[in-house]
Amino acid sequence: MKRFFSVHDCADIHALIDKALIYKKHPFADDDAGKRKTLGLVFFNSSLRTRLSTQKAAHNLGLNTMIINAGTESWKMEFEDGSIMGGTTVEHIKEGAAVLGEYCDIIGVRSFAELQNREKDYSEEIFHKIEHYSQRPTISLESATRHPLQSLTDMITIREIMGEKKPRIVLTWAPHPKALPQAVANSFLEWSKVYGADITITHPEGYELSDEFAADIPIEYNQEKALEGADIVYAKNWSAYHEYGAVIKSDREWIINAEKMSLTHNGALLHCLPTRRNYELADNVLDSPSSYVIRQASNRVWAAQAVLSDILHSQDMR
Amino acid sequence: MKRFFSVHDCADIHALIDKALIYKKHPFADDDAGKRKTLGLVFFNSSLRTRLSTQKAAHNLGLNTMIINAGTESWKMEFEDGSIMGGTTVEHIKEGAAVLGEYCDIIGVRSFAELQNREKDYSEEIFHKIEHYSQRPTISLESATRHPLQSLTDMITIREIMGEKKPRIVLTWAPHPKALPQAVANSFLEWSKVYGADITITHPEGYELSDEFAADIPIEYNQEKALEGADIVYAKNWSAYHEYGAVIKSDREWIINAEKMSLTHNGALLHCLPTRRNYELADNVLDSPSSYVIRQASNRVWAAQAVLSDILHSQDMR
Amino acid sequence: MKRFFSVHDCADIHALIDKALIYKKHPFADDDAGKRKTLGLVFFNSSLRTRLSTQKAAHNLGLNTMIINAGTESWKMEFEDGSIMGGTTVEHIKEGAAVLGEYCDIIGVRSFAELQNREKDYSEEIFHKIEHYSQRPTISLESATRHPLQSLTDMITIREIMGEKKPRIVLTWAPHPKALPQAVANSFLEWSKVYGADITITHPEGYELSDEFAADIPIEYNQEKALEGADIVYAKNWSAYHEYGAVIKSDREWIINAEKMSLTHNGALLHCLPTRRNYELADNVLDSPSSYVIRQASNRVWAAQAVLSDILHSQDMR
Repeated sequence: MKRFFSVHDCADIHALIDKALIYKKHPFADDDAGKRKTLGLVFFNSSLRTRLSTQKAAHNLGLNTMIINAGTESWKMEFEDGSIMGGTTVEHIKEGAAVLGEYCDIIGVRSFAELQNREKDYSEEIFHKIEHYSQRPTISLESATRHPLQSLTDMITIREIMGEKKPRIVLTWAPHPKALPQAVANSFLEWSKVYGADITITHPEGYELSDEFAADIPIEYNQEKALEGADIVYAKNWSAYHEYGAVIKSDREWIINAEKMSLTHNGALLHCLPTRRNYELADNVLDSPSSYVIRQASNRVWAAQAVLSDILHSQDMR
Repeated sequence: MKRFFSVHDCADIHALIDKALIYKKHPFADDDAGKRKTLGLVFFNSSLRTRLSTQKAAHNLGLNTMIINAGTESWKMEFEDGSIMGGTTVEHIKEGAAVLGEYCDIIGVRSFAELQNREKDYSEEIFHKIEHYSQRPTISLESATRHPLQSLTDMITIREIMGEKKPRIVLTWAPHPKALPQAVANSFLEWSKVYGADITITHPEGYELSDEFAADIPIEYNQEKALEGADIVYAKNWSAYHEYGAVIKSDREWIINAEKMSLTHNGALLHCLPTRRNYELADNVLDSPSSYVIRQASNRVWAAQAVLSDILHSQDMR
Repeated sequence: MKRFFSVHDCADIHALIDKALIYKKHPFADDDAGKRKTLGLVFFNSSLRTRLSTQKAAHNLGLNTMIINAGTESWKMEFEDGSIMGGTTVEHIKEGAAVLGEYCDIIGVRSFAELQNREKDYSEEIFHKIEHYSQRPTISLESATRHPLQSLTDMITIREIMGEKKPRIVLTWAPHPKALPQAVANSFLEWSKVYGADITITHPEGYELSDEFAADIPIEYNQEKALEGADIVYAKNWSAYHEYGAVIKSDREWIINAEKMSLTHNGALLHCLPTRRNYELADNVLDSPSSYVIRQASNRVWAAQAVLSDILHSQDMR
């Protein structure tokens, strides 16, 4: 693997899931793979799981890790080509990324959608420019439109729950007090399709996702009907794609609770976390055996370890 | 040891002091103890000594360390059970701590008293919830009502100064421009009692500490009289416990200076640091041989190392 | 080496450059030099290159690194002797630095000029006090008036470009929207002189640097004339020294672009970064083969590694 941005960077997701599950059993089986190599993690946004699980995975592989909180610890970055930098941005990504590439063998970047300009967010310029100018294998730690380490951990967890059986998955929108990016939902869809799942999306009207991710996937606007018979319930809030960034409906009736889970086929609840308790997901499901959210977060370590290992073992590591 | 929250978690404090003093002579005697284990340090508040000395101790034991500045680097945490999270908190401690527990073998937490609600602060819900939901051995890096790594370093330093001799200790209130928690004073008292010291407290009227810590310890409201004949002067500011969080008197006459130290029995000055020079403690004592504050801070490494080692060597490390 | 503050701390800069260039070929040749030793990096200001390259260098030498963002992660420091600390500063540098010295074998400090008070900035009290009270070998990560790790990397890069040939260097002022310290320019001058270069300074009138650094170096107020025949063009903005901290002229005509570079003797452009694109340096030079700024940033690792190694191998490491 040369980069980890979307499911399309991954030759065989089932092989990658297998690899992650082997690391879960034998975390230190490959503790020399990263020897004398350095992973740089750049955070433009907050992080708990990603920050810690990626560090942990790197440690398991013997990789040295350096972390930068961009903006607070370092300099405000400019991304616009040809910009005359007389304002508040201090360093252009052309230099910033090139310098990171000089110090790091692999680079991880977190940068959320700003939800101001759809075209800009969906162009993924931040990720692509960092990859381009750093000339290093680059890993998304969540970009504007995708969260592939999350999606890989989702697939690992679904495999653990379902084994070889084809899962019946419902991706359900859930309420949230703030406008959130579509990245987790988009990414979950593209990974689920390649995984080979039977997927339905349910959300209030107006929250249709981009065709790039959701084309050909049936939408059921009645949440309860959608949940019937599901093996996996993947809950997540997102703001509107078409009326970009809008919160069309924050209606609390879309909350996932034990009553709704009872409509499923003994379904497992997944969520990427953090979650707003009793707003997005109810206590009575989060605190029940139906919830796999902690297992899912735990699997982030093995997802990151499988990806880093794949990159470290690839021939194009200079 | 399964946790390190108060003196009551420690079976034998003199054995722990002995262990710390052995590490002080041989810092790397046990540098494999933490191999392939990870310590997570979570800071809800600022830290210099605790942050660095605990990292250093972990390094000496071969432990991997991951640090999170909660709030700035990660997500604002909710601690209330049953809360409907439609406001500013983004992640519930139930998930936050459980996830930390998945990534870390031992967890350290710093979270100061907010001084708004005595019952809440004294319930120590933040420490207890993190310990409970993480299901990991948890170490206080200063909680709302105690600072046990500080108290252990205090006892180590007193042992170095006094040897086997029973010390005569005065805990004296000192002025400060801000309202501070009672944690250091509380904790010092509970450790001193178990250490086997002869203790007196001196403070202006109104600064009486909680009976949980100060019952049975004589109070002398005349500072100069209290200092007469003391071997150890432990200076610290705290805000009122009864009129909770109040600064009743910021009278500068309670400052500790060389003139007051001359009333003691060649007494040693201890303070946890940071200290406000010439407001709380005068230059003429901090810059004199009576001051042991740097030695005390230095011993923080050995205190942390003894505690981490004790946990690493305990049978219940999963 | 006991400290690394200015060129005068370095017995033989050509030997140090040689050492850096050997590490560039063999990064791990000395990976045991820092074993069981700890480097503490204290940042009072933002950093990208310095933060990462110094960590990387330490890692290459087997040094343990601990980083503190002073102010945000730790306590606001007081530097004034005799101060009555009833205000916003929480810890005096006397204690802060002494404690760092207890935990760290080598200390690195970044603290920029505040540009409010020339005498204070040029007294370099922050660096000197940290060195004095920590009693440890102390490395400047850029102080008020100098940036020696930058200057060393500049000399390494000039050596790579010029070999044994004596370089003809022009230090040129370049426009910037903010008032910046004189540190990089000062430091470059003192290192260039010892290196043995033929130097000219060019800047608008009013931007004359301190005699401490610029005495005996010719000034040419006509930038184009100055650039004629230069081998090395070192571009940097600085605010006025005499009218201390002032931005006298932010005239955009002083920008360095390809047209101006064409006046040189196939000159190489150096800059410490970050740079404001198209304000300070034009795209058409930064994106051309004349630009060595990324190479220069890359060499920061070897500069730091040579300095750390020199300190680690010196006899006075306690």
